[in-house]
Amino acid sequence: MRALAQKTARVSGPAPAATGAEDALGVLAALVSEEMEACNRVIVARMQSPVELISRLAAHLVAAGGKRLRPMLTIAAARLAGYRGNRHVNLAACVEFIHTATLLHDDVVDESQLRRGLASANAVFGNKASVLVGDFLFSRSFELMVEDGSLPVLAILSAASSTIAEGEVLQLVTQNDLATTEAQYLEVVRCKTAALFAAATRIGAVIAGRGREEEEALDAFGLNLGIAFQLVDDVLDYAAEQERLGKTVGDDFREGKVTLPVLLAYAAGDEEERCFWRRTIEDQDQREGDLAQAMRLMARHGALAETIRRAEAYGAAAKAALALFPDGAERRALEGIVDFCIARVR
Amino acid sequence: MRALAQKTARVSGPAPAATGAEDALGVLAALVSEEMEACNRVIVARMQSPVELISRLAAHLVAAGGKRLRPMLTIAAARLAGYRGNRHVNLAACVEFIHTATLLHDDVVDESQLRRGLASANAVFGNKASVLVGDFLFSRSFELMVEDGSLPVLAILSAASSTIAEGEVLQLVTQNDLATTEAQYLEVVRCKTAALFAAATRIGAVIAGRGREEEEALDAFGLNLGIAFQLVDDVLDYAAEQERLGKTVGDDFREGKVTLPVLLAYAAGDEEERCFWRRTIEDQDQREGDLAQAMRLMARHGALAETIRRAEAYGAAAKAALALFPDGAERRALEGIVDFCIARVR
Repeated sequence: MRALAQKTARVSGPAPAATGAEDALGVLAALVSEEMEACNRVIVARMQSPVELISRLAAHLVAAGGKRLRPMLTIAAARLAGYRGNRHVNLAACVEFIHTATLLHDDVVDESQLRRGLASANAVFGNKASVLVGDFLFSRSFELMVEDGSLPVLAILSAASSTIAEGEVLQLVTQNDLATTEAQYLEVVRCKTAALFAAATRIGAVIAGRGREEEEALDAFGLNLGIAFQLVDDVLDYAAEQERLGKTVGDDFREGKVTLPVLLAYAAGDEEERCFWRRTIEDQDQREGDLAQAMRLMARHGALAETIRRAEAYGAAAKAALALFPDGAERRALEGIVDFCIARVR
Repeated sequence: MRALAQKTARVSGPAPAATGAEDALGVLAALVSEEMEACNRVIVARMQSPVELISRLAAHLVAAGGKRLRPMLTIAAARLAGYRGNRHVNLAACVEFIHTATLLHDDVVDESQLRRGLASANAVFGNKASVLVGDFLFSRSFELMVEDGSLPVLAILSAASSTIAEGEVLQLVTQNDLATTEAQYLEVVRCKTAALFAAATRIGAVIAGRGREEEEALDAFGLNLGIAFQLVDDVLDYAAEQERLGKTVGDDFREGKVTLPVLLAYAAGDEEERCFWRRTIEDQDQREGDLAQAMRLMARHGALAETIRRAEAYGAAAKAALALFPDGAERRALEGIVDFCIARVR
């Protein structure tokens, strides 16, 4: 395993005032606001069902909101690729449906109680409803794609769905296993998170009728952005305050998820520290104060700082992938989103 | 609620020797054996994943087998409609993948321990893996459909998937609720079971390039067959021996599922009997001997016999829908399957 950078984790300092990077989400949202309003209408309309519980659970999900980052990426990517029609609105809704279905099933698998600062759907409606409504949203997403009528888009999004499921299973397998390699961890991240980012942006080039090169550039942008996003998420689980995140800090630790911060701290630790990680992560024998101790060990070895450094490298690769496209509002908004994703830990 | 037929439930007598109806599954299997061998190869190949747990769980499902009734219906329906190519093999695999994914999620929702006489996947691999591998199979199914390349087929199967999920949620809502109407129960059956039968047979006409009339006839065949199949399944839960079925008798009762036999017995019962149903089904307060008492009450009011009578009526409608097609081996095999589905309770 590579040597760790020994700089202090930036996450441990006081939160700075809002920076340009933190405004970038607002910049993107403003740029695509008209299409996103249309997209949100599609999302609300297509979540409805004669089965009342489905509509009620859907309303809970819509109320919980979320950033709607992925559908915004689809819309911005399509515009960047020169697309000038309306298909990107429905396809953005498809992307959000796949994401929402994944979250519903994730929360069942993780037994989460909170999602985006609200009680998770499984906590309110039960695991059974969450599994089944997740299935409903998956299917709805495909119905909407079929209405759009593009087989290449269907191919990209159905492949992404398979890949997400594979990533989730791989994550389940590596859970509680400190023998997980960095390569395996990165494969989990690529599959469970980055594949949908890549598909979301790639379909923008597809509907714009661009060639292979533009498609692959937008795929590379989404993939690298998605990896950076997940690495930062993994850092946040050991760093941010619950209120700011709308999620319980320490969830990954309590579940024994083997994320990069854990792998780096474990690799750099002495025998006593490794004993600590084996007890808490592998044996799931956790006591009062263990999370704080985990955070101390990560700080000692710069594990969070190193994870952020890696995220920055993926972020740079994401930006580089956009070089192919003309400079303009869309490209700058997408570049800003890279900074935004990483700035979440600053 | 309509008056109940007071005849004795045929299910309570000794099992007769194998009849023609019981051979019908073998007749269909022989007719489509070559295509089903190819279909099974597709199923095994496409269940594979670099993620080893997926392949392992898939192998468990393949080993558990099952009748593969739905893919056989797709193949026979395509041939009946005059189709002469190879696409029906892969589409049959799609249908089976959707069915298998549904079973995996069903078993999680129902907390089942047995499936087809073997330990259910959730019992062996855990609920988490079952949820995620179900998602994987759903997605794989759509990938395979996209490869086939027919948007009408994609529309039919994605709509069926949504409908199945709606039916499962509706079933969840009606569980433990004796105020469920027969119409609501039939809607659950139509959605959770019959919609996939209808889609499985309808796509046969679609790939054969037949007109609307043939498509709708095969849809009606599948729909009515599916309803008959589920009604009989609901009877079997109160009738057959566990060994023969490969499933635990009394599952529906223990879960408080409000199926037609329960609704009929409840409607015909006196106040004391209704108290019994409210305690066992609504309050889920079940004691030793309650299942036997439920069976006695059903026999007293002919509830199983009446359910079978209804199944026979749907079966007749299924056969009638085939009248449009030329007589021949395929049509006779499909007619035989109707008898087979109903004969399971004799």
